[in-house]
Amino acid sequence: MDYQLILNEIKEEVSLLENEGLVANYIPELTNVDPGKLGMHLHSVDNKGYSFGDAEEKFSIQSISKVFSLILAYKVLDKDIWKRVDVEPSGDPFNSLTLLEYENGIPRNPFINSGAIVVADILMSHYQNPKEALLNFVRKISGNPSIDYNEKVALSEKSHGYRNAALANLMKSFGNIQNEVNDILDFYFYQCSLEMSCKDLSKAFLIFANKGRLVETEEVFIESRQAKRVNAIMQTCGFYDESGEFAFRVGLPGKSGVGGGIVAVHPGQYSVAVWSPRLNEKGNSYMGMEVLERLTTKTGYSIF
Amino acid sequence: MDYQLILNEIKEEVSLLENEGLVANYIPELTNVDPGKLGMHLHSVDNKGYSFGDAEEKFSIQSISKVFSLILAYKVLDKDIWKRVDVEPSGDPFNSLTLLEYENGIPRNPFINSGAIVVADILMSHYQNPKEALLNFVRKISGNPSIDYNEKVALSEKSHGYRNAALANLMKSFGNIQNEVNDILDFYFYQCSLEMSCKDLSKAFLIFANKGRLVETEEVFIESRQAKRVNAIMQTCGFYDESGEFAFRVGLPGKSGVGGGIVAVHPGQYSVAVWSPRLNEKGNSYMGMEVLERLTTKTGYSIF
Amino acid sequence: MDYQLILNEIKEEVSLLENEGLVANYIPELTNVDPGKLGMHLHSVDNKGYSFGDAEEKFSIQSISKVFSLILAYKVLDKDIWKRVDVEPSGDPFNSLTLLEYENGIPRNPFINSGAIVVADILMSHYQNPKEALLNFVRKISGNPSIDYNEKVALSEKSHGYRNAALANLMKSFGNIQNEVNDILDFYFYQCSLEMSCKDLSKAFLIFANKGRLVETEEVFIESRQAKRVNAIMQTCGFYDESGEFAFRVGLPGKSGVGGGIVAVHPGQYSVAVWSPRLNEKGNSYMGMEVLERLTTKTGYSIF
Amino acid sequence: MDYQLILNEIKEEVSLLENEGLVANYIPELTNVDPGKLGMHLHSVDNKGYSFGDAEEKFSIQSISKVFSLILAYKVLDKDIWKRVDVEPSGDPFNSLTLLEYENGIPRNPFINSGAIVVADILMSHYQNPKEALLNFVRKISGNPSIDYNEKVALSEKSHGYRNAALANLMKSFGNIQNEVNDILDFYFYQCSLEMSCKDLSKAFLIFANKGRLVETEEVFIESRQAKRVNAIMQTCGFYDESGEFAFRVGLPGKSGVGGGIVAVHPGQYSVAVWSPRLNEKGNSYMGMEVLERLTTKTGYSIF
Repeated sequence: MDYQLILNEIKEEVSLLENEGLVANYIPELTNVDPGKLGMHLHSVDNKGYSFGDAEEKFSIQSISKVFSLILAYKVLDKDIWKRVDVEPSGDPFNSLTLLEYENGIPRNPFINSGAIVVADILMSHYQNPKEALLNFVRKISGNPSIDYNEKVALSEKSHGYRNAALANLMKSFGNIQNEVNDILDFYFYQCSLEMSCKDLSKAFLIFANKGRLVETEEVFIESRQAKRVNAIMQTCGFYDESGEFAFRVGLPGKSGVGGGIVAVHPGQYSVAVWSPRLNEKGNSYMGMEVLERLTTKTGYSIF
Repeated sequence: MDYQLILNEIKEEVSLLENEGLVANYIPELTNVDPGKLGMHLHSVDNKGYSFGDAEEKFSIQSISKVFSLILAYKVLDKDIWKRVDVEPSGDPFNSLTLLEYENGIPRNPFINSGAIVVADILMSHYQNPKEALLNFVRKISGNPSIDYNEKVALSEKSHGYRNAALANLMKSFGNIQNEVNDILDFYFYQCSLEMSCKDLSKAFLIFANKGRLVETEEVFIESRQAKRVNAIMQTCGFYDESGEFAFRVGLPGKSGVGGGIVAVHPGQYSVAVWSPRLNEKGNSYMGMEVLERLTTKTGYSIF
Repeated sequence: MDYQLILNEIKEEVSLLENEGLVANYIPELTNVDPGKLGMHLHSVDNKGYSFGDAEEKFSIQSISKVFSLILAYKVLDKDIWKRVDVEPSGDPFNSLTLLEYENGIPRNPFINSGAIVVADILMSHYQNPKEALLNFVRKISGNPSIDYNEKVALSEKSHGYRNAALANLMKSFGNIQNEVNDILDFYFYQCSLEMSCKDLSKAFLIFANKGRLVETEEVFIESRQAKRVNAIMQTCGFYDESGEFAFRVGLPGKSGVGGGIVAVHPGQYSVAVWSPRLNEKGNSYMGMEVLERLTTKTGYSIF
Repeated sequence: MDYQLILNEIKEEVSLLENEGLVANYIPELTNVDPGKLGMHLHSVDNKGYSFGDAEEKFSIQSISKVFSLILAYKVLDKDIWKRVDVEPSGDPFNSLTLLEYENGIPRNPFINSGAIVVADILMSHYQNPKEALLNFVRKISGNPSIDYNEKVALSEKSHGYRNAALANLMKSFGNIQNEVNDILDFYFYQCSLEMSCKDLSKAFLIFANKGRLVETEEVFIESRQAKRVNAIMQTCGFYDESGEFAFRVGLPGKSGVGGGIVAVHPGQYSVAVWSPRLNEKGNSYMGMEVLERLTTKTGYSIF
C-alpha cells in the first residue's frame, strides 16, 4: 500500500477544514505552542517511515506517556498489576473522583489519571531512579537518545496539580498507594512532560504493532500477549470518555494527550502519530481525529 | 488454519474446568435450561462451519438480539441514529438509571437496556409490524426460517420488567421516546426472547466479518462502514461493564446475553458463537469467556 | 403579640421588592394563574386568624398535599411506615432517580416524589376509596367542606408524568410498591391537584402546632409524638434541596408546593400559609420565602 | 422543671439497655478509651447545672469542634462565609467526595469534613495564630481555662488523614482554599483533638440557647440572628447522614463527634451534652441518641 500517497491526500483534504478546537490552557507552558502546527508520521512494521508537515518537531506528549509507564510496570509486575488497576472504560471524564470513591480506590483503567498515578507508584517502588528508567526505555524503543523531560512543564503542572493530589490522597486512604504522595506526583508530572515528535512516537509504538518486539532487531521488549493486551486497553480506554467515538470513527487502538498528540496502532501493519494542538471538547486533538479517520477510510482497513 | 482441530482442543480443555457461574434466575423460564449445556460453532468467511457440543440447540439469545435490532435501525436512520443514542462505554452496570438521568435521557450506547429501548422505539416508528420485520431479517441472515420468538419468555420478562419500564419512562420524560411505553416494551421483550442456536448466531454474525455482505450471495445487507462501526461498538460496549475485560482477554468484538450465549467476530476471518448457561458475576457466560479466550490464544490472532 | 400589625408591615415591605421568580410551566394549567397574586394567613392556637391579600383564594397546593397523605398513612401504619420510606434529607433535586437506585428503592423521605408515591401506595392498599378518604380528611381538619380536587390539573399532570412513572416502576422493581403503577399515579396526581386557600391551609396545619389536636374541639387527630415527628421531617426535608436554606432563613418546619404555596408551623404558637406563584430556581415561592423570613424576624421567635 | 429528677430516671433506664455500638477505631488513640463510660450534663439558661455519671471527665470532642470554628469564622466573615460553604444537608456519608466534585468545590455545609476544612482555611487567613485563637475562645465560653488540645491525637489523625487531604486538594483545585493544604490540615486536626467534658460542652453551647450571649455576664459573643442560624444548621446537618433521624427522634439542634460526644440545644431553655464512646453505624453515639430521645420525651418539649 502506498502510504505516502495516502498521507499526501489526507494533508490536502484537512488543509481545507476549519479547526474548531482550542489549545489546552490549564498551564501556561502549553499555551505557548503554535496552534497551527500539524504533523503526521506513519511507520510500518517493515521499518519504513512516511510523513508530512511538522512530523519531526517535538511537543509535550502528556497522557501518551501513560502507555510507556504502563508497559514498564507491566514488565515489572506482570499480571499482578491488575490487582491494583482495572481494565474497564471509565464512562466519566478523565479526572473524576466519583467512580474512584465508589470503587474503593481501584482505578477503572491505567489511562485515567488515577490509574496512571498507581502505575507511577508501582515504578517508584521498583526502580531506584524511576525518572531515569522511564527515560532510558523511551529513548531505546524510539531510537532517539535526544528525547528528554521538559522540567519547566513538569514544575508548572505540579503547581496546578491539586486534583491529581486529591486522587492520590484518596487512593492512599484506600491503601492503594505505597509511596509518598508528593514523590509520586513529582514523577508523574515529569513523565507527562516528555517531549517527542510524531516520528519518535510512531517508532516507539511499533512494538505494539509488532508483538512486543523492536522491528530492527526483533529484540523482545514485552511479551506478545502483553502487547496485545495493552492494545486492547488502548482500544477501550485510550481517549478519556471519547474512546467509543474513536473506535467508531477510526477503529484502531490508540492514545491521546492534551498536548494535541494522538498515536494509533494497526497490529501487524503500522503505528502512526499525529500532532495538532487544538483540542475538541473531550480533550482530544480535533484535527488528529479527522486525520486518523481519513487514514482508515483510505486504507480500507481498520481492526474492524 | 484447522479450526476444527482447535475447537476439539478447546472442548477437551474446558471439560476439565470447574464452572463457577450461576444460571440467570430473574425469570422462571430461564432457569429451566440444563446448566451443563455447552456448544460452539465457528463459521469462516469462506462459508465453512466448525462446531462441537450443543451447537445446534436453540437457546434464548436475550441481549444478543440488540445487535440485530441495532442493524435494522441503523439501516433505517443511518447516522441520524446517533442523535438518539451514543457510542460510549457505560462504566456502569447494564441497567443503571444514574447515567441516563445525568445525560438527559440519551443512552450511553445501544447495548445497554436503555439504548436498546430507544432502538426498539425507532423500529416501531418505522415498521408497520416491527416484530415481523425483525424476525424476517434474522431468519434471512442466518439462513434458518425456523427461528422464532418464545412468547412465554417474552411475557414472563414483561411481567418482571419494571426496571425497563422505569428506563423507558425516564427517557420519555426527556423526549427521547416517541411511541407508547407499553408498546415498546412489548416489542423489546419479544426481541429478547428470540431463540437461536450457536450455528444460527455465527452464520448471522458473518455479515460483520464480511463487510456487511452475506457470504453465500455477496448480497449487501449493510454498508461496509456500518458493519465496521457496529464491530467497534461491540468491541467497546458488548459486555456490560466487562467490555474491557473481554477486549483484554479475548480481543474480538462481540456480544453476550444472559441466556449464556456469546457471539464474537474476527473481521475478515470468521464469526463464532458459544453457549453455556452459567454466568459470571457480571452476567456473561463463565465458560463462554474461557472458550473464546482459548480460541484467540490458539489461533494466535485477535484483532490486537 | 399583634400578628395583624406584623402582617401589615410585611405586606408593605414586600410590595417594594422585585419578584425574581418564574411561574411553574411544566403543565399548561399551572401557567394560567395570575403571577401577581399574593396572600398570607396566620392562624394561632387560640383559634384567631390574621391575613392580608389573596388569602382566601384557592390555588393548586401541589406538593403541600404530601403532608396530608403522610399523616393519613402514618395513622394507618404508625411507625411501620418507616420501613418503606426514610426520614433523611435527600441532598438531591426533588425528582432524582440516582439516590433511589443507590438505596434499593427506599426513598429518602416522604416529601420527595418517590416517597410520596410510596405513601400513596400505602393509602391505596388500606382504603377502598383513597381519593375520598383523603378529601374528607382535608375538609375536616381545615373546616372547609368546599375543598376539592381539580380534575383538569390532575389529568394534565398525568399526561406529563413520565418521570414519576419512572420512579414508581423503579421502586416496584425493588419490591417497594404493591399496587398497579398506573393506579397509584392516578391517585397521586389527584392528590397534588387539591385546591385550597392560605386560610384553608393554615387552619389545616394547626394540628401540627397543637400537638395533633383540632383547636376548636381538642379532638385528637394524630398523636402528639406523631405531630412532633412530622414537624421534624418538614424541618429537614420540606423544601426539596433548599431545606437547609429555609431552616436557616426562616427557622420553622414547613412545606412548599410548585403552585407557589408555603405552609409553616410554629409549634405551640401558630401555623401560617403564604401564596405567591413565582418560584425561585429551587422550585419554592420566591416571595413566600421573603414573607416568612420577615415573619420570624419581626416576631423575634423561630424554633431556634 | 426538675431536670435532675429526669436525668436520674434516664440514667436508670439506659443502664438496662444493651449498647450495640462500637468504639471508633480509625486511629489508635481513640480506641484506648473505656467503652463503658457514660456521662451527661444539662445546663439551663438560668445558669444551673444537672448531671450524672462521667460528666466531668474530658474526652476527644472531634467533630463537635466544628461548631466552635464555625462561630469564630462566622464572626470574622459574617454572611460572606456562605459564599464559600452552603447550608444544605449532604445526603451522603460525612466524607464523600462525590457531591463536592459535582458542586464545584463548594461544600454542602460546614459540618461535613470538607466544609470544616474551608472554615479552617478562613480562620487561618484571618488569625496570626488560629490554634491559639480557637483555644482561647473555647476556654472563655466554657469557663474552663484548663481545656487543651491533645497533640498525640492530632498527630495520629494527621498520619491517617489522606481522605481529608483529598478533600482539601480537590477544593483547592476549584479555588476554594487559600492557604497551604498541609497547614490547614494541621490546624484542622488540632481542632478535632480538643478534649472537653460534658460539663464544659454544655456550658459552652449555652450561647446557642441564650441568643449568643454568655449566661453569667450577658456579654454578647455572637449576634442573636447568628446563634439562631447556627442552630438551624445543627438541626439539619449536625449528624452526618443521620440528621433527619436525630430531628425525628430527639427534635433538637445538635452536633455529634466520633469520640462519642453529642451536644444539643433547646433555645431559650438549656444546652445538654452526653458522652458514651460506642457509636452506631452512622458514627453517632449509640447511647447518646437513646439518652437524648428520653430527655425530650420526659420533658415533653422539643423544638417541634
